Amino acid sequence: MTDHHATVTTYWASAEARDWDTFASVLADDVRYDLPQTHERIAGRDHYLTFNREYPGDWHLAVAEVLVDGDRAVSRVAFTVDGATQQAVTFFGFAADGRIATVLDFWPEPYEAPPGRAHLTEPMT
Amino acid sequence: MTDHHATVTTYWASAEARDWDTFASVLADDVRYDLPQTHERIAGRDHYLTFNREYPGDWHLAVAEVLVDGDRAVSRVAFTVDGATQQAVTFFGFAADGRIATVLDFWPEPYEAPPGRAHLTEPMT
Repeated sequence: MTDHHATVTTYWASAEARDWDTFASVLADDVRYDLPQTHERIAGRDHYLTFNREYPGDWHLAVAEVLVDGDRAVSRVAFTVDGATQQAVTFFGFAADGRIATVLDFWPEPYEAPPGRAHLTEPMT
Repeated sequence: MTDHHATVTTYWASAEARDWDTFASVLADDVRYDLPQTHERIAGRDHYLTFNREYPGDWHLAVAEVLVDGDRAVSRVAFTVDGATQQAVTFFGFAADGRIATVLDFWPEPYEAPPGRAHLTEPMT
């Protein structure tokens, strides 16, 4: 029995620390990263490590919550780059040895509120 | 002990069926809906019901997965409107009686893949 909550916490803490050895230690060799918004896939730990190491900008992250249900987990993380903050939502699947086997990543960007519903809404605080 | 997984399943099934009485039955009176991408908030069951009933388009949904961890849940749902499909990710909090008290909704839209990483990626299948 592995602790997926601890694995996801280590994943994000090591990314924030740029501790790529620890980051690699929680990834399966054949980890698969999927980004449905761009239809990009990254296959394998080497490519995925390079992708993260080379990700541009002075980014920092804070984990808002992690949910684990059986062999699935999800995190909600606030990313700050150059003063702008955006939330990311990431679903994780795990290999039998507890390492991360799949990463399904969503980056919801701000958009203009559609017209016709202002009578139902108020500003989010 | 309430079954949050069943509650979330009922929430989506009743929305798809436009069965607004059942949909209302799983919502707390003071349910709060937050949409961080537009900074909109909807407060209270009446407003939230109206928002959903009046949501434009011939939308249909299919639940991809539901995760429950303690008093939090998250769903990933494929929405189809007029032939276009988009995934929505929704976090749920619950009142003491098991009804849904908070809905935190993300609608990640497609965007162009940034340059400089094509050597690491392949098309997602």
